[in-house]
Amino acid sequence: MSKKYVYMFEEGNAKMRDLLGGKGANLAEMASIGLPVPPGFTVTTEACLEYNKTGELSDEVVAQVEDALAKLEAKIGKKLGNIDNPLLVSVRSGARASMPGMMDTVLNLGLNDQAVEGLAKKSNNERFAYDSYRRFIMMFADVVIGVPKSYFEEYLDEYKAAKGVKYDVDLDAEDFKKVAAKFKEIYKEKQGVDFPQEAKVQLYEAIKAVFRSWDNPRANVYRQMNDIPYDWGTAVNVQSMVFGNTGSKSGTGVLFSRNPATGEKGLFGEYLIDAQGEDVVAGVRTPSAINDLAKEEDPVLRGIHTQLVNVADTLEKHYKDMQDMEITFEDGHLYMLQTRIGKRTAPAAIKIAVDMVSEGLATKEEALLSVDPKQLDQLLHHTFDKDALAKAKPLGKGLPASPGAAAGKVVFTAEDAKARAAAGERVVLVRLETSPEDIEGMVAAQGILTVRGGMTSHAAVVARGMGACCVSGCEEIKINAAEKYFDLGGVRFTEDSYISLDGNTGYIYGEDIPSADAEISGDFDTFMKWADDTRKLQVRTNGDTPRDAKTALGFGAQGIGLVRTEHMFFEEERIPKMRCFVLADTTDERKEAVKALEEYQKTDFTAIYEVMQDLPVTIRLLDPPLHEFLPTTDAEFQAVADIMGKSVADLKVKARGLHELNPMMGHRGCRLAVSYPELPEMQTKAIIESAIAVKKSKGYNINPEIMIPLVGEVKELTYVADIVKKTADKIIAESGLDIEYKVGTMIEIPRAALLADEIATVAEFFSFGTNDLTQMTYGLSRDDAGKILADYLDKHIYEADPTARLDQNGVGKLMKIAAEGGRSTRPDLKLGICGEHGGDPSSVEFCHRIGLNYVSCSPFRVPIARLAAAQAQIKYPR
Amino acid sequence: MSKKYVYMFEEGNAKMRDLLGGKGANLAEMASIGLPVPPGFTVTTEACLEYNKTGELSDEVVAQVEDALAKLEAKIGKKLGNIDNPLLVSVRSGARASMPGMMDTVLNLGLNDQAVEGLAKKSNNERFAYDSYRRFIMMFADVVIGVPKSYFEEYLDEYKAAKGVKYDVDLDAEDFKKVAAKFKEIYKEKQGVDFPQEAKVQLYEAIKAVFRSWDNPRANVYRQMNDIPYDWGTAVNVQSMVFGNTGSKSGTGVLFSRNPATGEKGLFGEYLIDAQGEDVVAGVRTPSAINDLAKEEDPVLRGIHTQLVNVADTLEKHYKDMQDMEITFEDGHLYMLQTRIGKRTAPAAIKIAVDMVSEGLATKEEALLSVDPKQLDQLLHHTFDKDALAKAKPLGKGLPASPGAAAGKVVFTAEDAKARAAAGERVVLVRLETSPEDIEGMVAAQGILTVRGGMTSHAAVVARGMGACCVSGCEEIKINAAEKYFDLGGVRFTEDSYISLDGNTGYIYGEDIPSADAEISGDFDTFMKWADDTRKLQVRTNGDTPRDAKTALGFGAQGIGLVRTEHMFFEEERIPKMRCFVLADTTDERKEAVKALEEYQKTDFTAIYEVMQDLPVTIRLLDPPLHEFLPTTDAEFQAVADIMGKSVADLKVKARGLHELNPMMGHRGCRLAVSYPELPEMQTKAIIESAIAVKKSKGYNINPEIMIPLVGEVKELTYVADIVKKTADKIIAESGLDIEYKVGTMIEIPRAALLADEIATVAEFFSFGTNDLTQMTYGLSRDDAGKILADYLDKHIYEADPTARLDQNGVGKLMKIAAEGGRSTRPDLKLGICGEHGGDPSSVEFCHRIGLNYVSCSPFRVPIARLAAAQAQIKYPR
Repeated sequence: MSKKYVYMFEEGNAKMRDLLGGKGANLAEMASIGLPVPPGFTVTTEACLEYNKTGELSDEVVAQVEDALAKLEAKIGKKLGNIDNPLLVSVRSGARASMPGMMDTVLNLGLNDQAVEGLAKKSNNERFAYDSYRRFIMMFADVVIGVPKSYFEEYLDEYKAAKGVKYDVDLDAEDFKKVAAKFKEIYKEKQGVDFPQEAKVQLYEAIKAVFRSWDNPRANVYRQMNDIPYDWGTAVNVQSMVFGNTGSKSGTGVLFSRNPATGEKGLFGEYLIDAQGEDVVAGVRTPSAINDLAKEEDPVLRGIHTQLVNVADTLEKHYKDMQDMEITFEDGHLYMLQTRIGKRTAPAAIKIAVDMVSEGLATKEEALLSVDPKQLDQLLHHTFDKDALAKAKPLGKGLPASPGAAAGKVVFTAEDAKARAAAGERVVLVRLETSPEDIEGMVAAQGILTVRGGMTSHAAVVARGMGACCVSGCEEIKINAAEKYFDLGGVRFTEDSYISLDGNTGYIYGEDIPSADAEISGDFDTFMKWADDTRKLQVRTNGDTPRDAKTALGFGAQGIGLVRTEHMFFEEERIPKMRCFVLADTTDERKEAVKALEEYQKTDFTAIYEVMQDLPVTIRLLDPPLHEFLPTTDAEFQAVADIMGKSVADLKVKARGLHELNPMMGHRGCRLAVSYPELPEMQTKAIIESAIAVKKSKGYNINPEIMIPLVGEVKELTYVADIVKKTADKIIAESGLDIEYKVGTMIEIPRAALLADEIATVAEFFSFGTNDLTQMTYGLSRDDAGKILADYLDKHIYEADPTARLDQNGVGKLMKIAAEGGRSTRPDLKLGICGEHGGDPSSVEFCHRIGLNYVSCSPFRVPIARLAAAQAQIKYPR
Repeated sequence: MSKKYVYMFEEGNAKMRDLLGGKGANLAEMASIGLPVPPGFTVTTEACLEYNKTGELSDEVVAQVEDALAKLEAKIGKKLGNIDNPLLVSVRSGARASMPGMMDTVLNLGLNDQAVEGLAKKSNNERFAYDSYRRFIMMFADVVIGVPKSYFEEYLDEYKAAKGVKYDVDLDAEDFKKVAAKFKEIYKEKQGVDFPQEAKVQLYEAIKAVFRSWDNPRANVYRQMNDIPYDWGTAVNVQSMVFGNTGSKSGTGVLFSRNPATGEKGLFGEYLIDAQGEDVVAGVRTPSAINDLAKEEDPVLRGIHTQLVNVADTLEKHYKDMQDMEITFEDGHLYMLQTRIGKRTAPAAIKIAVDMVSEGLATKEEALLSVDPKQLDQLLHHTFDKDALAKAKPLGKGLPASPGAAAGKVVFTAEDAKARAAAGERVVLVRLETSPEDIEGMVAAQGILTVRGGMTSHAAVVARGMGACCVSGCEEIKINAAEKYFDLGGVRFTEDSYISLDGNTGYIYGEDIPSADAEISGDFDTFMKWADDTRKLQVRTNGDTPRDAKTALGFGAQGIGLVRTEHMFFEEERIPKMRCFVLADTTDERKEAVKALEEYQKTDFTAIYEVMQDLPVTIRLLDPPLHEFLPTTDAEFQAVADIMGKSVADLKVKARGLHELNPMMGHRGCRLAVSYPELPEMQTKAIIESAIAVKKSKGYNINPEIMIPLVGEVKELTYVADIVKKTADKIIAESGLDIEYKVGTMIEIPRAALLADEIATVAEFFSFGTNDLTQMTYGLSRDDAGKILADYLDKHIYEADPTARLDQNGVGKLMKIAAEGGRSTRPDLKLGICGEHGGDPSSVEFCHRIGLNYVSCSPFRVPIARLAAAQAQIKYPR
């Protein structure tokens, strides 16, 4: 039994999107509920994948197409390529997910020098026939053969100019005959062979061209941005043509059942009389608003509007969501050419979701599922003015590392960013890569652009944490930071140049594009309340400062999942003290240095506790390699030398000794605590003493969770946990207060995941550090991943950047091993995630499914995680 | 029911070593086969571990000791601390594995001011009683309290000098009375309290001191060197004293049943008349050779010799191995104080093993198990002259990275090493760390010493491959390579200084210690033949040159498991061409550069195939990060610039762009092949074309195994494997020959292990790259592990360096997942290991157990792996 590659519309339904694509499945579905759909058939996505692998349509596929075509011809009573009564068809792509404008379409297929005459006779409309023919020649040349349509359009413009008219409607049958003849000449001139007259040849070439368009560069880019796997493929829909270009009772239109920008109920869209579909898109004539159809003089047209209102209503009830439709009306008869769930802005998405529930069209669960969590980003960040953005031309592209829009003058150092921002300038910080010392500059800048680094590079992580726009890893940039300029897309940028960054797409513009804050509506609160009522997974935030904590609380965070204590050490006043620690030779020197830091830590923890009140706060002990703190300039060395009473030369020798070849896998995390027990001792002291202080002064119930990073072996956890407990218990006992605290660990080293059952004998909670876990599991450094990821995405080796979207297959397998292992030892083990994946919807769903208690993400991603968690609960109830 | 912590000797046997330690178990065993053993009891290793954790002997342990003591007193008819008839005991350590001289012993315990009088009366020997008392005071002070015995010995020397005598035997009872009295004064002076008169106090303090000695620095170092886990603990043996110091028919001795240096059969050892055990060790008097006992005038002593010959024979038959015994004879009665398997040199071990089989004392299996595979290193490498080594004092210690002995003058650069060695000097290369460009200097040097890097650093891996001595990671060294000197142990070494390295221990000496090649006897071949007949696991070698291949074949390798192609690119003539590839901007430039390299590769592969003939050869495609090949000096840049017709400035910009923050997890391995398909194409061409050439010219059946490194995802393997197969199949088809080849992968990325079932759909073999797999699984860079490992071994967090001994628990778990996953997809999947662990015996055993087909290791470790594989098969037959 051979596989079924071709389905007549009447054989399909909406549930068959994987095989028939969205368009094919919905055409079938509309046909089945009695809406007027021109007959046709769909060639499956499986046929596409096979074609793209082998480069040939198999005999089986061809045989089934022939069979379907015969059925179609019988149904319509016309024959493809027939001279007297030709069947014309459209050949259109349709993938499982909507990818608007990414792939190709051919209309009016089946016309040739004889058939066009037959069509003219049969329709009694020679002008229409030749108009259709010239359209077909151009589309076939452009889409199937790759001869750009500009050659044809240029000629048409010349022709109209010569005749002294402006619009196509001003041309008559004779004109189109001449144009069609000339188009065939252009075709032959560019392609070297005659335009194919054989209709079957036209059909198969068109099908193959649509299949190939699945692999075109813009489709690949779109898929990467939207997490659409390459191996879905596209289907092809072959449908009998209906014509909007047969006269004044004919036309074409695209419309939504609600306003996609605002969410307001009612038809929204455009139509054109006496035109085919591509005319609307091409903007040849200015179309009218769809509701103007109700004001047309011709009652036939007004009737179409009435029909449309009913159709939209029917489809919304049927699909329980806002619809995006394509229609054609031919001599007063309405035909549905497509319907799909309509894309919409974030505010519209929220309004529609809430309205649909109050209209009784959808349940709360359906409403929650109708909004893409990633879209919420738009609500929380600066966005560019849409029209201004549409006109701007990007000069380059990096990774969309942190959403939002930023525009300003270029600065090359954090100091400059601070100074010029303080002077009232809008600036964008451009760096080879950022380091913790750049933080103040990053805060001051509108946005950050880096040449190196991936989605979890320092710049990306910090920017997301602050809600600042960041584009990272734009390797095309040639930067000369010393001389303060860089080159991109053939343009040299200096400190006087304006630049704009789109953090949602990664595009970089060489101009100052205006932007605005988005607003959050009352519907948003209603909607998020539904999400909170639904989800089982808690959502915490990663935050290092009281400011972060406040922002995240405002976004609905239920605690802090990660305080990175090291971020506190980079402030101007503090860093010299940290450097004394790093450059110390003896334990005594280290203890001395640590003492100074203890007070800072207490101040910080106290402030964070006061914001979070009774909510849980997880504090991670010092994590990064020490050399991150090292002085770089002579002045900085001198400052440390003065404090320590040492020579700069000695300190420089010491600093060189701290160099590591692979710092990511070097002396960091709990390894620092093992080497220098005075460090966890000091940090524990600060954590517990500030908890006691806040409990005393404010009465909040502070129960800190102390997290030990980079554990790979239970004995190292035991070693550090013993220090923490001994220190904490003593302080608590002396305070006479009842302070509960937990000691847990990050699971971020593959070995820790593998041996989680042992680790859980000591750890009271696990938090998956999926940034490091992904790096180690892949053996791929996030700082060096730029070129590798580009090549791998290009060659379809990776479907997505694993540092941005959790690799459920590999890293996820380790997480499952760890979750099961940990809970086998300690059934009530609290499990969370604090890697950047905690804010990625598909990763959140995975965390829900493997039984985590919470996800923790940057403040600005908290709403996304809340919605994603609700959706996960609806899809996989637990 | 409480745990049993104390066993009378008659309750134990030889199988209870884990609980009773080796000494306790063997005392029990000897008692059970009727040999004369003074009664006593053993406190278990479990009691030790509990004590070392809590710092206290539990009530339960004390109660059981009291009980055992009562039984012992009843059996002997004496009482501990009794004034008239005191029981004296020895308190000695005894761990599961023998750790000679590492832990502590107290003799004559139970004496005090009264008991000494009782002993004098009872033995009718006042001199003996006070001799025993003064010995006890000193030992107790030294071992239990920590007052160094030098204080006491100095006084004794003064006393003898004052009296004008040389030896202790020249002192009489009155002398010892005075000495004992003075010893008590010294004790009080140093310790601040009186010497304890209460015998029970003495006993428990001594037991605790022995337990604590498990944790002393020299014991810790010994354990690390010998892979003895900390959590084994030591037992304590409390045994009634017998006295070798009661007169001329008494004495003490230590002896072996065969010569431990040569393996020759017959008693070998020493004895002393009228002395206690520690006198032999201390060298107070010169002992006599044990066989002189047969020539003593006193027939009683000659009788003891006869008894010893019988006892040795009995024990050898019983234990089926050579024995190391401690004896005391008291008034003509022989007592066995200890027996254990005797340590021996490698040549002796081989001879004894072969002899035992021909004597019918042991089976071949038992003989194979009797030799420690690691010992074979001694047979294959240079060793220091034993006496000269004993006299030398080490100035520092690094990691014993590659065995052997090296002595010569210090050189600081590879060039100097080459030049001075060519001029006939013996030189030792001292570097901060080595890089591939140092290879020629490393070959020229006697040995290599590095300041940084662990057991799998570049220096270590290369040195082991060459069989050269290497000590790595000696972080105490302060090196100034520019000015050509370094400081270690307070000494400044310049180019004129001699230095000696012991690659077996890691010790560094500031002098020129003579050394010699060890010789391989005929017994060695016999013995290794047995191993080969026994083992199921094949042994291959890692080798990059025909020289390596020849060496390994001589050592019995059955193929090459790893040819690292990159090592071929570092030769002076070749490296500029490689640099052209690395610094190329376009694919065309890369193709051009690759062409030049292809000829080199063909030459190399041809030579290797010709050595290996029909044996399998696994060739790995280019693996290291490209920047390893970068030019460093201006002259080097200029050379590349000349070839490429580019400017040095442009090349430097390009070179800077190749910098990576964590190169170990960067653009390397198959990632290079994905980015630059021309690379695997060229390498495949060279591999297959040389195979064809050798098949044609020599008739050998060359079936190359092409190995794709650093795979983490099946699609990247597919991508590169497709290139390899397409290239290879075309060449083979054109040749008309029948060349079979395999395409496989390294499993060295955790994700590859986790998803091995998918990977095996493409890979025809797996080779575990446990160097990288260990790094990634631990998140620990081998280049940066020095300080971390030192701290972790110190604090008992790691039992062993996981880069040297395979972590069976964590990394091994991944290997099992991979082996099972791979074979679930492809049951005949060939599995091997080519990480450095392939030559480590415990790791080889693990590989055998999880069903690998072969291990591959450096040439000089091949014999070790062969024996380890045989032992694994005996222990775990498959």
